[in-house]
Amino acid sequence: MQLAKVIGNVTSTIKIKDIKGVSLLVVQPVNSKFEPLGSPLVAADNFGAGVGEYVFFSKSKEGAMNLPIPTSGVDAGITGIIDYLYVDDKQKSG
Amino acid sequence: MQLAKVIGNVTSTIKIKDIKGVSLLVVQPVNSKFEPLGSPLVAADNFGAGVGEYVFFSKSKEGAMNLPIPTSGVDAGITGIIDYLYVDDKQKSG
Amino acid sequence: MQLAKVIGNVTSTIKIKDIKGVSLLVVQPVNSKFEPLGSPLVAADNFGAGVGEYVFFSKSKEGAMNLPIPTSGVDAGITGIIDYLYVDDKQKSG
Amino acid sequence: MQLAKVIGNVTSTIKIKDIKGVSLLVVQPVNSKFEPLGSPLVAADNFGAGVGEYVFFSKSKEGAMNLPIPTSGVDAGITGIIDYLYVDDKQKSG
Amino acid sequence: MQLAKVIGNVTSTIKIKDIKGVSLLVVQPVNSKFEPLGSPLVAADNFGAGVGEYVFFSKSKEGAMNLPIPTSGVDAGITGIIDYLYVDDKQKSG
Repeated sequence: MQLAKVIGNVTSTIKIKDIKGVSLLVVQPVNSKFEPLGSPLVAADNFGAGVGEYVFFSKSKEGAMNLPIPTSGVDAGITGIIDYLYVDDKQKSG
Repeated sequence: MQLAKVIGNVTSTIKIKDIKGVSLLVVQPVNSKFEPLGSPLVAADNFGAGVGEYVFFSKSKEGAMNLPIPTSGVDAGITGIIDYLYVDDKQKSG
Repeated sequence: MQLAKVIGNVTSTIKIKDIKGVSLLVVQPVNSKFEPLGSPLVAADNFGAGVGEYVFFSKSKEGAMNLPIPTSGVDAGITGIIDYLYVDDKQKSG
Repeated sequence: MQLAKVIGNVTSTIKIKDIKGVSLLVVQPVNSKFEPLGSPLVAADNFGAGVGEYVFFSKSKEGAMNLPIPTSGVDAGITGIIDYLYVDDKQKSG
Repeated sequence: MQLAKVIGNVTSTIKIKDIKGVSLLVVQPVNSKFEPLGSPLVAADNFGAGVGEYVFFSKSKEGAMNLPIPTSGVDAGITGIIDYLYVDDKQKSG
C-alpha cells in the first residue's frame, strides 16, 4: 500500500452506478517523511477520511474490496487511516 | 483512479470482438491543476465523454467493468466525468 | 491501452505450453505523435499484426483474453490494430 | 517480486477489518546491491519480519495470498525473508 | 512480457509455503539491445533458466500461472527462454 495525504475530492454526476454515494478523495502520495511523491490520484473512501489526514491506500481491484460493491470498477481505495508511522532512519541507507 | 482529459479517439477495425461498438478515447493524464502528466493512453468509454472533457479512469480489469462485456480484455476505462475537483492547495506540501 | 508500434518478434522454444503457436511480438510503446516512449516489450498477438503496424495493447490478464487460452500466463497482448488516431492538439496543453 | 528492506511499521486503528492483527511494515525497495530504490511503501507481513531484515514482496492481489484472509484488500505483502542473494556481477552489463 | 537476463538467485527459508522448491531467480530487465533497464527483480522459474540466459517474464498473477501452484502469491515468473530476438531497427524511430 502507498502512504498518502488526503488533499481534496471529486464531484461527479455521470459515473459508474456502483459507486453512487461513495466518497471520491483526491490523495497525494507521500514518502516516509510525508513529503509529496508524484502526482495526486482519485481513491474511493469508506472510512470518512478527511482533508489533511494521512492514509494508506491499495491499488487495482484490492482498492475496491472495502466498498459496498467490491466489484465496482474502482482501482484505488483507502485501506486505512494512519495513527502513527514509525521509520528507523538509520535503516534507510540500505 | 487517475485524472485525465479526453483529447481524441482511436479508429480500429481489427480488434477484440467484445469491444465492437465501444468508444475508444485517447486520454491525457493530468495532475490536480489539470496540467498534462506523462503520455496519452487509450481508454474505453461507456459514458459518451467528449473531447475536452475531464474524466477519471480506472486501469486493469477495473477499467472494463462498466462495459457491455466486462471481461472484454480492455485494461483502461472511464470511471466517471468530473463535474468539480476540489483540492486544498495548502495541504499539498505534505 | 497503450499505443505501440510493432518492431520485431521473439522466437522461443522453451516457454509456457499454453502459448505454443501464439505470435510473440516486440512492440515499442509510442505517444500520440507515434514517437517512441520508454522501452520495447513482448506482447502476444492473435490478429496477425506485422512489423511496422501501429496497435494498442492491454497489460496484465486483460492482455491474454483474446488468446486461444485466456489463462495462459501472458501479461501483454494486442487489443487491436489502429486504422486512424485522432488527437485534438489544442486540447493537449491541459 | 521486489527486493526490499524492512525499515518501520504503520499503526492504524481505522482500517479494513480483514487486516486487524496483521503486521503492516514499511519497506524500502532496494536494488541487487541492497541500495535504496524509489520510495518506501506499506506491506502486510505474516512471517514476523523485523526492522533491518531483507525481504522480497509481491504486489497486487498476490501480496495478500499469504494472509489469514487472502481477499483482504491488501496490495503488497511479504513473500519471503532473504537468507542469501547471489548476483553474478559480470552478467549485469547486459 | 518484459525482456530480461538472469543474473542470480535468491535463497530463502522463510517464505510462502506454496513456493517451496520453486527456483527464485534475480533477473535484470533489458531493452531490445539487451542493455540493462531499471533494477533487477525476483522472478519464479519453472524452466530451469540459468545465469546468463535471456528470458521474458510476466508480472502479476500471470507470472505464477506456470508454477506447480498457480495461486502461490508470486507476482513475477519466467514465461519463456529467448532463442532469438528479431528487431527491425529502422522501425524503432516511431
